[in-house]
Amino acid sequence: MKKFTKAALAFSAALAVTAVNATPAQNQKHAEGVTKTRKALYTLVVSNMGPLGAMAKGKIPVDAKQVEKYATRLEQLSLMMPDYTRVDTSKFDVKTEALPKVWTEKALFAEKIDALQKASVNLKMVAKGGNAGDIKKAIGGVGKTCKGCHDEFKAD
Amino acid sequence: MKKFTKAALAFSAALAVTAVNATPAQNQKHAEGVTKTRKALYTLVVSNMGPLGAMAKGKIPVDAKQVEKYATRLEQLSLMMPDYTRVDTSKFDVKTEALPKVWTEKALFAEKIDALQKASVNLKMVAKGGNAGDIKKAIGGVGKTCKGCHDEFKAD
Repeated sequence: MKKFTKAALAFSAALAVTAVNATPAQNQKHAEGVTKTRKALYTLVVSNMGPLGAMAKGKIPVDAKQVEKYATRLEQLSLMMPDYTRVDTSKFDVKTEALPKVWTEKALFAEKIDALQKASVNLKMVAKGGNAGDIKKAIGGVGKTCKGCHDEFKAD
Repeated sequence: MKKFTKAALAFSAALAVTAVNATPAQNQKHAEGVTKTRKALYTLVVSNMGPLGAMAKGKIPVDAKQVEKYATRLEQLSLMMPDYTRVDTSKFDVKTEALPKVWTEKALFAEKIDALQKASVNLKMVAKGGNAGDIKKAIGGVGKTCKGCHDEFKAD
């Protein structure tokens, strides 16, 4: 695991290890690693919302089995969000659309994550029912939680 | 959801939509989107292997609850891998460490993903037991599946 661990440790700090006596350069590197993992999480969120949005808009047919899969992933990813957004990178030179408010209004941000999680679980349940109209509405419910968070916490 | 869907649709193609009558420029853009989502998935894998590797090497204490969480995520991410690695980007101009073999030796690649999934489930179970020595061994088991795949399918 040697070769692997070397690369992986840069990220481990982001999630589990608090740097002690770190130099400014090390802190900057840490912030870059944290930003990379945070963005990766949202890239996966978007990749699942994409086909769901296309179904809701009638661009592709509603496929209940696929919806269930995407909704399951969104739920899983929403549960990862608190960890992946915990470290405040707002004081560092990183390219990000995350507004500093993510770290100054933590309770509100946590509420937004919770809303996504609940809407994803709801979509999963509705998908099991298989009714296309209900599924489209439930996709809209998930989309609202995306927008509700972006409006507050994401730069345009 | 309008603003959101526009950005998301670029990715949706990667997962659910087959482009028909696409231009070369559209195909290139598609390959870039696919590559971005594929890399994002592996970035999340690495971010969970990081602290696990640190525990296995004794750099941070073994925390069974945390191990269970990371193992759960690795299992979830491994289940996403078939979708996120399905589209062959080897003929496009994309920056990636994924070797063309990913798409020419699909059965072997699928076996490697399956090995990661099984090792993650095993780690999750062992973590529930709470024995640090057993946990370290099971982390090593996951690390072996990472290496086993990288040796075949990832550029150095």
